[in-house]
Order: sequence, then C-alpha cells, then structure tokens
Amino acid sequence: MASYLVTGASRGLGLALVTHLATLPKTAVGTIIATTRQDNSTRLKEIADTSAWRVQIVKLDVTDESSVNDGVAAVERQLQGKGLDYLVNNAGVSDWSPTGLDGMDNLNETFNVNVTAPHLVSRAFLPLLRKGEKKTVINISTTLGSIAMADAFRPLLSPAYKISKAALNMLTVQYAQQYANDGFTFLAISPGWLRTDLGGSRADLPVEVGAEKVLDIIQKATPEQNGKFVNIHVPGWETREGPNQYDGKEIPW
Amino acid sequence: MASYLVTGASRGLGLALVTHLATLPKTAVGTIIATTRQDNSTRLKEIADTSAWRVQIVKLDVTDESSVNDGVAAVERQLQGKGLDYLVNNAGVSDWSPTGLDGMDNLNETFNVNVTAPHLVSRAFLPLLRKGEKKTVINISTTLGSIAMADAFRPLLSPAYKISKAALNMLTVQYAQQYANDGFTFLAISPGWLRTDLGGSRADLPVEVGAEKVLDIIQKATPEQNGKFVNIHVPGWETREGPNQYDGKEIPW
Repeated sequence: MASYLVTGASRGLGLALVTHLATLPKTAVGTIIATTRQDNSTRLKEIADTSAWRVQIVKLDVTDESSVNDGVAAVERQLQGKGLDYLVNNAGVSDWSPTGLDGMDNLNETFNVNVTAPHLVSRAFLPLLRKGEKKTVINISTTLGSIAMADAFRPLLSPAYKISKAALNMLTVQYAQQYANDGFTFLAISPGWLRTDLGGSRADLPVEVGAEKVLDIIQKATPEQNGKFVNIHVPGWETREGPNQYDGKEIPW
Repeated sequence: MASYLVTGASRGLGLALVTHLATLPKTAVGTIIATTRQDNSTRLKEIADTSAWRVQIVKLDVTDESSVNDGVAAVERQLQGKGLDYLVNNAGVSDWSPTGLDGMDNLNETFNVNVTAPHLVSRAFLPLLRKGEKKTVINISTTLGSIAMADAFRPLLSPAYKISKAALNMLTVQYAQQYANDGFTFLAISPGWLRTDLGGSRADLPVEVGAEKVLDIIQKATPEQNGKFVNIHVPGWETREGPNQYDGKEIPW
C-alpha cells in the first residue's frame, strides 16, 4: 500500500503515471496524489472521480514555495499520519528554438521549472518522505541532459531544456549524497521519447508504455541505485538505432 | 596582437588574468578589456593606469542584457574596427551552505550569474568575435561541476555552485556545437582550487599561478578542442592526491 505523489499530473507523462497507478492492485498502490498547477484537466478529474478516493488532486505550483508548502499540508492531511513513499518530480517544460542559442531567451525560466522546482518540492516533502517506507524520489530527466551524449542530440534545438536537465542530474546527485545515510533513494530517469504534448506525435513510444516502464523502475528501485541516471527498459527495444535507448541501463553524465 | 575580454576582472582570477596579460609582450597581446560590475577595484585601476591604454576598463553587469549590449558598443569603439579574439567568461559566484540542500535558497540567482550571464555575454559579443582571428570563448568552470566526479567533492557544501557549473558545461557544449562550422572554439576550463576570495586561503595554488596556466591553455587553444572541459596544467602537480588535478587533461562530465 505504497503512496505516490506525481507533479505535473494534468497531462503527458504525469497524467499517464497517475492513470497507470490507478489500475494497479490496492495491495500495491495506496493513495495517489496528483498535483497540478491549474485545476483544469478533465481527464485527471475523471480518473480521480472513478478511483474511489484513491487518486487525490492537489493544486500546487511547483515553482512557488508557499504553494508547495500548502501542498505539503494538504498531502499530510490526506495521508492521515502515514508517510509518503514515492515522490515523482515530473512537472517540467521544454523549449524549441529554431535559431538555437541565438533565440534562447527562456533559460532562467526553464531552469526555474526544471531544476529549482524539483528542489523546492523535494525539500518540502522530505519530512513526509522520512516517515514513508520507500523514501524514494524520482526526477524525470532525459538523455538530452547527458553532456556525454550531446553529439547525438545536436539536431534537437532545445538548448535550454538540455542545459536545465544536465543541472537536474547534478541536483539529483547532490540529494543522493546528502540523504544516502538516511535510507533515501534519489534517481534520475530518462523516459525516452514519448508521444506527449512535449514529445510530439512522431515520438518513439506511446506515453502509456513510457509510464508503465517508468513505474517498473520506480517500484524496483533500491538504495543501491541512489544517485543513478537510467533509461527505462522496453523489452525488444534494447538495441534499436538512434540516440534514445530503452535498455534500462545507466546513462553517462 | 590578439585582443582579450575578461569579465569579473575586479578581483580574484579575473584580476589575475588581466594582470598577467598586461605583462605579456605587445606583439602577443593587444587590447585587454577588463569588465567589472562595480567600478570599485583600486588594483584594476592601477593596472589600467600603468598600461599605456592597453588595459581598458568597461563597466558591465553580465546579468543585465542592456548593460551587456552597452558593453559591446563600448568595446567595439575601443577595438576601432578590429574584432575581439578571446572572450573569457570569468565572472561567477559560489555558495556556501552549511546545511547543504536544506539551506540552498540561492539556486536561481547562482544559475543566473554562472550560466545565463555567460550566455548573454557570449551571444552579444559573437559579432565582434566573428571579426576576430581567434574566435575563442573560454568559460571558467570547475571540476566541482563534473557530475562524474561528484563523489570526490561530496564534503564541499556548495550545491548551487556545483549544479550551476554542470549547467555551464552543457552551455559550453551547446555553443561549441552551434558555432563549430564558423571556426569557433568554445572551451570550459577548470582553474583548480585557487587562493582567491572565492577559493579561500587554504587553496592549492596562488591565483597568479592559476591565471598563468589558464592563459597557457587559452593561447594554445585550437578548434580541435572545441567543446572540451579541461584542467589547467601545472608542471610537477600532475599526479598529486586529492580531487583537484593539474594535469591539463580532459575532465569527465
């Protein structure tokens, strides 16, 4: 009966994660907290309405510290004395700059959403996570944030996204170091290229498959993986061509 | 007669770079532009005053795009139709957080100075750099920004600095990719641990040695090194113990 919190749950991978979690047996998955910045996702509301109180929507702006703190208080009430087991920092933004760096005018904003917000959320939820049994925090990253793999993603004109995700990887490692002795597992996961608003329709995989495979990694995560950066594993897709890999292996920084 | 621009030149490594450049023969080093946010460095003024117009101080706030643009106009006038050969993005800030991530409240500000500012400065000076012969941009980074080496720097409680410098490394690679075909060389250099206000008095090397060795790398830089991240080389210090290395070699991301 592990509890989950997923940020950015109104659409894309976040919505797919909540949707998939809600299909899993109640013996495995208890309360599912879905946070959204704007209370406007019809699909998320439908899932919550048919979940028999299992999916709880919490309005929370991950970039606003007081909103995050209000969210912690709301989640604490919903967990009724129990801790939070899994935090999934999924909310994020990308950029698309046809002129590359020349048109990159959103670097601070992208960093704020993709790096500072996961920091604010992780830090604020740490007391509830300490009370949980799993003590696991997942930062949704991307192979586009791998500096070692940058050559492979050269044609993709999302420089602010790439820069912010490299920073998110370092944030993940900083958390992993600081809380390793407290039994925490911090993990950066690249979900690959998924068919979402962010990924577009030509992406490799349906978002539902990505969500299922991200959850495979989350639910098998152990403290031995603390501070690692891994691909999802999609059987049959391990050795495909192209920079996105689906082999479940570690990604070079 | 190559021209140089060094940001953050009022103290520390920036001041040492300008000081050392001003001692080099005029056949090798022409105009030296020293930019400072506040016009308050007595030492820098002394160097400029005794440089026979070679060192020019330009007031420039690297985080303020209109100030950067004003700086470009001022530098253009000083170069009198010539291009800029070397841009050294040296201005930067560090943090010190005794409680680690728990007290990390300056992440956006640190990122703005250490990553967004080098972007604003590099982008604004690109036209002048294109007119230069060397087309070389140096981002002063640090091994503390190496995610692969993070274990070695675990005791150092500067998480925002580490995160921002990992991002700066990715910024460097993005610039290297975009302008490789135009003959540019973008290079991230770790000057090691130097005795400056930022590094403290217990650091490995006097800042003068660090500056000299940074300039060794800058002046030998070729387009083959575009996009790399390297240590300075201090003869006799190649194999010393500790995480800071002075072997002139590439640093893992």
